[in-house]
Amino acid sequence: MNKQEYMLHALELAKKAAENDEVPVGAIVVNPSSGEIVSEAYNVSAHGSDATAHAEILAIQKACTELGTTRLWDMDMYVTLEPCTMCAAAISFARISHLYFGATDEKGGAVVSGVKFYEAATCHHRPVVEGGICAEQCGEILKNFFAAKRK
Amino acid sequence: MNKQEYMLHALELAKKAAENDEVPVGAIVVNPSSGEIVSEAYNVSAHGSDATAHAEILAIQKACTELGTTRLWDMDMYVTLEPCTMCAAAISFARISHLYFGATDEKGGAVVSGVKFYEAATCHHRPVVEGGICAEQCGEILKNFFAAKRK
Repeated sequence: MNKQEYMLHALELAKKAAENDEVPVGAIVVNPSSGEIVSEAYNVSAHGSDATAHAEILAIQKACTELGTTRLWDMDMYVTLEPCTMCAAAISFARISHLYFGATDEKGGAVVSGVKFYEAATCHHRPVVEGGICAEQCGEILKNFFAAKRK
Repeated sequence: MNKQEYMLHALELAKKAAENDEVPVGAIVVNPSSGEIVSEAYNVSAHGSDATAHAEILAIQKACTELGTTRLWDMDMYVTLEPCTMCAAAISFARISHLYFGATDEKGGAVVSGVKFYEAATCHHRPVVEGGICAEQCGEILKNFFAAKRK
């Protein structure tokens, strides 16, 4: 699978979040050597879980369990939305190799927006970042979700 | 219990982390109305868990489960070390009312150090912050831990 195909897979997960009335964000952890999707998750932070249950945190937790490790060296993450401050730092702690994201999040993001955590002196592992993958589709599902909320 | 007593309770948890060869940080969530300790946790991120298993994240997750909510309005957190970027943001998302911390963490902190998340435009809930509570004792256990590591 190529980058776009991985992101579209993460987008399918985001759709599941929307079906559960959760902010539609999906994330997967991929082993780029084998092409295998190691873990997948979507946001469940509004219902039934806790404030930390963003897609990226859950995907990291699942991948760590799956691989029996606390460090995801050489693993990549695909997430439909620019990670927030909490998740950007978690991705750094988990030693994710490459971070691919879809839509930019000016209000809450922390990679190219906000605190730009990977540029901070207190960031001790910086993933290689590529944003804007399937950005339009990843942003559209969020726009539709919030537009429906406002009705 | 007063602030110092709550912090010393969190410090006891940090000692448990040290006994498990984990960076000694402890955290509790307190209901200030009743004085009840709602949840307690210590860092387990190096062993047996995942990169996100910092004391604060675990204490938030446990408190959310305990109270059956995703938002800890009117709850306070006591943590022995200045929260990192991930945890500072998680504390904001969880809507913690007051954050009391012990030692300052210039290398990894994100409250009075580093990205100072609560001052960022992308931070949408700011807890009332008081640092330096039992700072010497909270810092000492960390210094001793890392000094022993270097031997």
